[in-house]
Amino acid sequence: MTSQQGLELTQQAGGFTLTFQQRVLLRHTPEAPCLWIGRGKADIDMFRGNFSIKDQLSEKLALTDVSITPQGQGWNIRFSRGDVAHSTLRITTDAQGRLEMQLHNSDQTNNRMWLRLAAQQADHVYGCGEQFSYFDLRGKPFPLWTSEQGVGRNKQSYVTWQADCKENAGGDYYWTFFPQPTFVSSQKYYCHVENSCYMNFDFSAPDFHELAIWQDQAVLRFDCASSYIGLLEKLTALLGRQPELPDWVYDGVILGIQGGTEVCQQKLDLMREHGVKVSGIWAQDWEGRRITSFGKRLMWNWRWDSELYPELDKRIPQWKKEGVRFLGYINPYVAIEKELYAEAAEQGYLTKDYSGNDYQVEFGEFYAGVVDLTKPEAYDWYKNVIKKNLIEFGLDGWMADFGEYLPTDTVMHNGVDAEIMHNAWPALWAKCNYDALVESGKLGEILFFMRAGYTGSQKYSVMMWAGDQNVDWSLDDGLASVIPAALSLAMTGHGLHHSDIGGYTTLFDMKRSKELLMRWCEFCAFTPLMRTHEGNRPDDNWQFDHDVETIRQFARMSRVFSAMKPYIKQAVALNAQSGLPVMRPLFLHYEEDAHTYSLKYQYLFGRDLLVAPVHEEGRSDWTLYLPQDSWINLWTGEPHSGGCEVTVAAPIGQPPVFYRANSEWADLFASLKAL
Amino acid sequence: MTSQQGLELTQQAGGFTLTFQQRVLLRHTPEAPCLWIGRGKADIDMFRGNFSIKDQLSEKLALTDVSITPQGQGWNIRFSRGDVAHSTLRITTDAQGRLEMQLHNSDQTNNRMWLRLAAQQADHVYGCGEQFSYFDLRGKPFPLWTSEQGVGRNKQSYVTWQADCKENAGGDYYWTFFPQPTFVSSQKYYCHVENSCYMNFDFSAPDFHELAIWQDQAVLRFDCASSYIGLLEKLTALLGRQPELPDWVYDGVILGIQGGTEVCQQKLDLMREHGVKVSGIWAQDWEGRRITSFGKRLMWNWRWDSELYPELDKRIPQWKKEGVRFLGYINPYVAIEKELYAEAAEQGYLTKDYSGNDYQVEFGEFYAGVVDLTKPEAYDWYKNVIKKNLIEFGLDGWMADFGEYLPTDTVMHNGVDAEIMHNAWPALWAKCNYDALVESGKLGEILFFMRAGYTGSQKYSVMMWAGDQNVDWSLDDGLASVIPAALSLAMTGHGLHHSDIGGYTTLFDMKRSKELLMRWCEFCAFTPLMRTHEGNRPDDNWQFDHDVETIRQFARMSRVFSAMKPYIKQAVALNAQSGLPVMRPLFLHYEEDAHTYSLKYQYLFGRDLLVAPVHEEGRSDWTLYLPQDSWINLWTGEPHSGGCEVTVAAPIGQPPVFYRANSEWADLFASLKAL
Repeated sequence: MTSQQGLELTQQAGGFTLTFQQRVLLRHTPEAPCLWIGRGKADIDMFRGNFSIKDQLSEKLALTDVSITPQGQGWNIRFSRGDVAHSTLRITTDAQGRLEMQLHNSDQTNNRMWLRLAAQQADHVYGCGEQFSYFDLRGKPFPLWTSEQGVGRNKQSYVTWQADCKENAGGDYYWTFFPQPTFVSSQKYYCHVENSCYMNFDFSAPDFHELAIWQDQAVLRFDCASSYIGLLEKLTALLGRQPELPDWVYDGVILGIQGGTEVCQQKLDLMREHGVKVSGIWAQDWEGRRITSFGKRLMWNWRWDSELYPELDKRIPQWKKEGVRFLGYINPYVAIEKELYAEAAEQGYLTKDYSGNDYQVEFGEFYAGVVDLTKPEAYDWYKNVIKKNLIEFGLDGWMADFGEYLPTDTVMHNGVDAEIMHNAWPALWAKCNYDALVESGKLGEILFFMRAGYTGSQKYSVMMWAGDQNVDWSLDDGLASVIPAALSLAMTGHGLHHSDIGGYTTLFDMKRSKELLMRWCEFCAFTPLMRTHEGNRPDDNWQFDHDVETIRQFARMSRVFSAMKPYIKQAVALNAQSGLPVMRPLFLHYEEDAHTYSLKYQYLFGRDLLVAPVHEEGRSDWTLYLPQDSWINLWTGEPHSGGCEVTVAAPIGQPPVFYRANSEWADLFASLKAL
Repeated sequence: MTSQQGLELTQQAGGFTLTFQQRVLLRHTPEAPCLWIGRGKADIDMFRGNFSIKDQLSEKLALTDVSITPQGQGWNIRFSRGDVAHSTLRITTDAQGRLEMQLHNSDQTNNRMWLRLAAQQADHVYGCGEQFSYFDLRGKPFPLWTSEQGVGRNKQSYVTWQADCKENAGGDYYWTFFPQPTFVSSQKYYCHVENSCYMNFDFSAPDFHELAIWQDQAVLRFDCASSYIGLLEKLTALLGRQPELPDWVYDGVILGIQGGTEVCQQKLDLMREHGVKVSGIWAQDWEGRRITSFGKRLMWNWRWDSELYPELDKRIPQWKKEGVRFLGYINPYVAIEKELYAEAAEQGYLTKDYSGNDYQVEFGEFYAGVVDLTKPEAYDWYKNVIKKNLIEFGLDGWMADFGEYLPTDTVMHNGVDAEIMHNAWPALWAKCNYDALVESGKLGEILFFMRAGYTGSQKYSVMMWAGDQNVDWSLDDGLASVIPAALSLAMTGHGLHHSDIGGYTTLFDMKRSKELLMRWCEFCAFTPLMRTHEGNRPDDNWQFDHDVETIRQFARMSRVFSAMKPYIKQAVALNAQSGLPVMRPLFLHYEEDAHTYSLKYQYLFGRDLLVAPVHEEGRSDWTLYLPQDSWINLWTGEPHSGGCEVTVAAPIGQPPVFYRANSEWADLFASLKAL
């Protein structure tokens, strides 16, 4: 048919093919239709952020018949099945020349849609938010629902089984804090669905991708580019980009410490004495704590606990003078025992249950209310809590935790079903933090970091962290899993990622070993932010100050990290300008090299460093792939020509890292081994 | 509308209600229809009898519109959905006055149907073949597919998890060797679906039972009675009944022995010396064996192995003279290394793969061909193998093992899809054995016993055994699980059931304890047949001859069992005459007592004995429910009036058993404690 801005629609007997900039995106015949609609009732159980989701499907219809009408720059396609049901697909381009598909069911009770996008067998697919187990998503379905990420995340692991038995918490390969209905195809197009309902993107079939959407309407947007870098620039133009990080972030490691002012002082002093470069202290219990069977938990009342942290108000400026920032913690819930809850309840700022009472979420031996961020007054009130209790008090950053627990049976001010709001919640929570920074004039000075995310987090969440890894070596939930997480998020338009050094979840027989902490430390020197975490059961874990050898590893790696400050800053600035992520899949720069498309445990850190973290226990060497280029081993200075796998010595303290011989930063890189 | 033989059809606006003998069976309105049809592609993976079954559902339509036409004694109901699809339901009564529903989709490609039968919240449901985890099926879906029963059968058990990791073998609550699309409602009707395709009977909803049927047509049959006993009589009139057991079965225990003629002789002698009443030796390795990592396996070539069993041909008549029968083993597969396979392959008697080659099934480190029982010549050939190699050789019985492994991608002579034949296979295998007995004139003299079953097994499988319990105390796969298995099978029309004394599956850390063997022995004295099994790893298990105390338990329990011969024979005869099972749910005789409907770990053995086996470790007392009647404790003579729970002493050797004070067998029962 006509061709508009790269759009082409070809009609065949009873069907059509839609092409956008030479990519075939839809292919429809009555025998192999591209659209189904139907009706289902979601059966969703939540227990502490762990979801069991089933669809009680009452109907699913193939819409076999189409009638096509040109309209404006595009077409209206009426899909129908006899006289029983129909749906309309409006195909057009938006003001920026992107392809826009608007799907609309004739009947609101038809609240399910399955759209098949044409695919080719050789296609690779990346993105869908933060994916911990798979980077190339081809061959599997990916349900998209923000939740806890699971403990173990692999039904073949004993840890997962134990967590499943205990509270259905083991998770699976697709569980994530940050899902997103956005993917990048190796045909060099992106597809983004604007909805926030439950979706399931199934990339199993050889010739189509099936997008299941649990709503009666949807808007899909596509764009293409001639390079992946160009494509990410376009994607982040659509979704937003993260601002640059505060400058102080690169000056060393942020130490995760709990236990009070003097504990912070002592650990800070000890680390500095041994030459550790410390940029901050992150004390998540600055607002006080409670003890549960899971471990130490926090008192969710979001104001300085002057008993646990005496004189913190005076110590913060003192530390700041010494180049050490103080960071705290907040989340979007208020514990029912305390005054913030009382105030929010009094003002009607909490989400409700179906009876109109304040909804109380069980968080593991305690309850909290949910601040209704859809209500402007509640949103402003909570933003002011952040501005007053956190920013004005002097915090230079915080973990903005949670976001993935919105119950699907709570009632919000905006009237949108909680099933639809659930995924949108993390971005709303990010925005609340972001706005507090902007309104305080502190964007770019103050850091906050989140684990939960969704569409919108690209703009509003200024830094992601990988959430709660196990303190182990497992591929699906240990150190290794952080790498595909960073890379998949990069392909979803979020280019700033880091993780808890040492991991977090310490349950069952897990205990963090010294070796794991050392390996995680050296890995994080090659990410845009270094920050430690004690874990949920600190006493079971090896900590940064447990022996001199460990402290020395932190000292050296913090020096390496901060020595790279100009290099990292440049990469972060590029991310802010054009959406080119800081931790990059190799194929962004070596797209002709087919081998790079399946690499999920190595990455480029900026343009010129190739990093392949050791993620197995007891290793003293490591095998990795070097793409065709001139590479130099960061620690030995040995040159490698690339285009092949190499095995290198990789003792603790020498994570496999290579730099490009012709990098403008070659002198800087060459100086690192002496640090 | 009209009323025919208890049939009543009432039309309302756009809908109808169908009543049969005052039971509301169908209720249809356009908003709450009773029929859906659709189209799917089964995605079935088999690994050694463990199946993973998913439906790739491409369409599911509610058939909202009905048009009703009287025809003959009933009606034709045309269900449709606009002009898109329709299905016909023919409602009539058959020659015996049963309600018959014939469902037929207009289009064969619509190979899925979901029929909702009206239900009431208080209904109980029983049957669906042999169900090991649940007796009252209400509240859960029950997929109906013959398969291995699983190792552990409970996702919360460590054994299950290990078996799942190893070969997807852990199973779940509904896994069974003997499923059947037949259930009995406490509204005192049965429903039987005549098909053998994959089905899923979902009893979760309060107001309907949803029967999912993976075929384009189905025939359902219903009948009612005023009592459960009357209902079972009607059900077994439809399905067939088992003949009486050979008389010698009641004369003692059948000892499961392996290892050769002399091992059999020695163990037999030892047991008889200690007063054990032995009715048979069951040597499953009579045809030779092979060793695999699972344990000792057999040589599937179905003829006497005269090396392992020298002079067996002479010893069999000798033992028989002494009152001890010799039993062997067979299954419907032939090992590819041996001559039966060669002969079958030569004659074209094996099922094929899609390329036309003989299909070879992997059975755990060895392969076997599948005798094509749908091919008359192959069926006759195999029946003759049984007649010649087993019966003429002198076997008085055998385990007719397997039946549940028919692969869904094999091709058979009758041209029926293996997906449809899979469930039907066990009954065909039973019939082959049954016919061999009939044609040899040995029905009622020779015993065979099966684990796999389906519709038809009621007539052709002369005795069931419960398959492969774990040698443990678990509810879902240990001793306890045998009781709901017997009772659910009883409600499906098969009234003869027994189990491996001591259980079978010995994997991971499992080892059969002495206590477990003793408890299982005393339980089986109150079932229609006593037979031991060494288990798959005999050396890890406590065996009947391991110490004198164990032998004495067998001696005493075999005396108790054979002393009850006239009582058991009468119960078995009643089962043969009218389908009243030998092991009975209490509500068969106490239907007014609501409490009896949820009892799954106690039963009536015949009319007058109430048995509540101890199925927990380390117990010396036991609590059970006695319905309103006059009961006498079998071991102490203490009278109980019933209608309440009682706790009784239950040391090993005194399983909780009560008899009715006014039983005609009271004197016999009273004599048992002295044995």
